[in-house]
Parts: sequence; C-alpha cells; structure tokens
Amino acid sequence: MVKVKMFDAKEANNSPRKAAEVPVVDANAFYAVLESRRSVRIFTQDPVPEDTMRRCMEAALKAPTSSNLQTWEIHWVRSSEKKRLLIEACLGQPAAATAQELVVFVARPDLWKRNNGWMLDHLQSSPETPGKALQYFKQITRIVYTQGPWSLFRPFKWIWFTLRGIKKPTPREPIHAGQMRIWAHKTTALAAQNFMLAARAEGFDSCPMEGLDSYRVKRLLGLPRTAGISMAISVGKRAEGGVYGSRFRFDSSHFIHEH
Amino acid sequence: MVKVKMFDAKEANNSPRKAAEVPVVDANAFYAVLESRRSVRIFTQDPVPEDTMRRCMEAALKAPTSSNLQTWEIHWVRSSEKKRLLIEACLGQPAAATAQELVVFVARPDLWKRNNGWMLDHLQSSPETPGKALQYFKQITRIVYTQGPWSLFRPFKWIWFTLRGIKKPTPREPIHAGQMRIWAHKTTALAAQNFMLAARAEGFDSCPMEGLDSYRVKRLLGLPRTAGISMAISVGKRAEGGVYGSRFRFDSSHFIHEH
Repeated sequence: MVKVKMFDAKEANNSPRKAAEVPVVDANAFYAVLESRRSVRIFTQDPVPEDTMRRCMEAALKAPTSSNLQTWEIHWVRSSEKKRLLIEACLGQPAAATAQELVVFVARPDLWKRNNGWMLDHLQSSPETPGKALQYFKQITRIVYTQGPWSLFRPFKWIWFTLRGIKKPTPREPIHAGQMRIWAHKTTALAAQNFMLAARAEGFDSCPMEGLDSYRVKRLLGLPRTAGISMAISVGKRAEGGVYGSRFRFDSSHFIHEH
Repeated sequence: MVKVKMFDAKEANNSPRKAAEVPVVDANAFYAVLESRRSVRIFTQDPVPEDTMRRCMEAALKAPTSSNLQTWEIHWVRSSEKKRLLIEACLGQPAAATAQELVVFVARPDLWKRNNGWMLDHLQSSPETPGKALQYFKQITRIVYTQGPWSLFRPFKWIWFTLRGIKKPTPREPIHAGQMRIWAHKTTALAAQNFMLAARAEGFDSCPMEGLDSYRVKRLLGLPRTAGISMAISVGKRAEGGVYGSRFRFDSSHFIHEH
C-alpha cells in the first residue's frame, strides 16, 4: 500500500494502457473453496499433515500488508503441554479442544521500525531501486508511523494533519498507539483470512476464535504487552455436527451501499 | 466466533468422531488465485462488469465475523463526481486514479447493538434455536460489547476481568471504544481479503489503499465519526508495469514461530 507516485496517472489516462499477462484462474474452483469455508467447531481426530500447515502459513504471509511492513506473526502451538494451556486460554471451547492444530495470529505494531529497517536494507541492496521507493521508507513511513513514547507526538500530528487537511486531502491516521494497533491488526486479519481459505483448499477446516484470554496467551507465547492477539485459529477435519447451522448473514442490502 | 458451549469436548474426545461431508475442492486452483493476487497500481481501461463486482462483494460478506455481528460495510462509489472526490481523498495515487471501480470497506463498531437485535429476531423466529444460542445474544454479547458512554464502564470491566482472570482464563477485551474499533476492523479486514481474492478469481486485480484522508472519505459517504475507514480498494485489469516489482516478503522464519 505504498503511496509514492511513480507514475503520472493523468498523463497515462490519455493513452490506452496495455494489459499485463496474468495467470489464467478458475473462478468456480475458487468460489467452491470460499463457499465451503465455515467456522467449524468440532473436528475429527484426523491429523493435519505438517506440510499442509506450512503451506497454509506461507499462504497467509502472501496477503497484502500495509507499506509492506509485515507487522504480523503466526505462532504455531505444537507441544501438547502448551496446546493444553492454549485450549484453556480459549476458554475450553470445543473448536479449540477438538482442534488438531492451533495457531495464533499476532499483530506486531511494535515491530514496524525493525521491519522498516529491513525494507531499507533490501531496497538499498539493489541498484535498480527507484529513488522514490527509498524515499518512502526513509522519510514517509517514519513520519507516518512514529508516534513518540506514550504517543507524545499525537497533539502535534493532529494539529498538523488537521490544518493541512483544510486545504488538501491529508491522511489523518495513525496518530497514536491505539491507531497503530488498528493498523497492524488489519494487516494481520488479511493474512488470517488467507490462512483459513488455504486450509479449506487443502481439504481441512478452521475456526477463528477471539473469545480468549489474551493475557494468558501472551504469557504462553512469550510475547510482550505491546503485541496484539488478533485471533487463535484451529485447524482439522470437519466432524459431523461441527458446523452450527447453515450460514446466516443479514440481507446484503444492509451492508452494500452504492454512491 | 460464538463462545457458548453446545458440546462437551471432553466426552466426545473419548469416542471417534465421524467426518462430515464437505465439497471436494481444488487446492492448486485456489493457490493460482492466491499467488497471482498482487497489489496492482496501474489498471487498463477495461471495465469491470457489474455482475463481477456484485459477486466479489457478496464473497466478501461470507468471511467469518466475530459473534456473527457483521459490523462491516462496503461502499461502492460509482458516480463519476464522487469517484473524482474519492480519488482525491486517496491522495490521487495511480492505484485509485486508474481504477475502473472503487469500493471502501468500513468498520462499524457503532452498529453492533443494532445487529445483535437482528440476530435475536432471527434466532427467536425459529423454534429450533438452542437456548444457549439465545442466551449468547441476550446476555453474553451485551456484557462483552457494551462499553457505556465515553467507555465509562472501562475501569469496572478492567477490575472485574483482572480479578476473575487471576484464577481462571478470562477474556480481557474489548473494554473500551478503542478496542471495539480493533474488533470491528479485524472482521472488516477478513471480508476485504475475500473481496480481493474473489476479484483475482474473476480475472481482475485490486489494490488496497490505507493512505487516504478518512475525514474526507467519511464526509463523501455520509458516514458518522464513529465509523472506521478500513481501506479503499480499487478494481480493474492489470496494466503492463502495474505491479511494482516481484513480491517481496522477509524470510518467513521471522514471522512463523513454533512452540
């Protein structure tokens, strides 16, 4: 979600743009995966192969991520003792208790600076990196994501963005630690959805769980207070009666608005 | 992500559980979609059929959603005047300026109570609804998601959850409006990822954009201050040069941790 202009859109809109070659894909096969993904709360005893788990986790990390800063983590809890503790922290719910595998998706807003440094290392290692890309990770991300200790820069950022915003479009967030958390949680959830769909594509099922004791989960995973538990996700094969009723959504006219 | 126990996991773990019938799916076809999804920043002039857009939006709304409360919205900006304003609010970036279609994913933590009422209406309309499901939407969601005006209940919830948490696993969030925002943004991002993958499956491409003026976007869409702009997403056909470089992720060993 890089914002630097590397292209003059107005200029290009005057001449037709050539289509790029893109792999041919099968929409029906994709929708079969998406439609059959349900939150499964009772799993069979069939194990999930390690390879499957690894492919699903790698698929998760191919989600788009804000400024490519990858402020996400996946914690795969494999030891039976830690699994027992994680099931407890998930309030013992059957989706956790009957799961064959359990992972925890974690948002790491606190690691944006480390990752920004890695991005710079990566970009600087190639002579073909456009100057604007370098500038983005040298200046823009630092202005946007630095909030100061205890979000001390908040009032200054607010005044600056608000005054600038009177005359021209100006990003308003993030200007404090709470908004940094939202920012990292969004990116992490995009990855989590990739993971759940990949599990379904592999013939397995999943259940995302937010009803958990985040304090205990952080202690179990050795995570600092600044990390955010996005959700635990269980994986396994769907058991009979494992889906509680048919999918129910309110009429989409409540959610899809046209302007 | 319902937490009510409708099933005794310990009991069931003693007897093998029968697998449910699940549609057969094609993992390779799914991965072809996932792998070819890239953030596309320059689109061709080819239009996106209205049907395609509707299928992608419906696919979005099939993502899992916390407590099934569906605190999400998709705003599809179709009029050319509003599109012009939205492109401006997206800072004129090419991914917006060259997009054929533009949607905005919006988190609506402020609408949880309305949707909880709808869930109750739905459940109460069927005589087969288990009592625990009714109890969940009558009591548990109300305890969990009610924060009081200006999050006044925060200190009480904090003390209650912290004391209870000493002895037994206890959810720690959400206890204030900021955590309600995180909660709704997570659910909305899950839907956004479905949308982007569906667009790819349909032969189109997308770009999620968070670098935008949320104040102007809310004004444009007639949204209250309490709504949260998750991201704008552009849709179109990938133009030559529309992807800025090959996909770059740091080594996954930084993000995948085993316990």
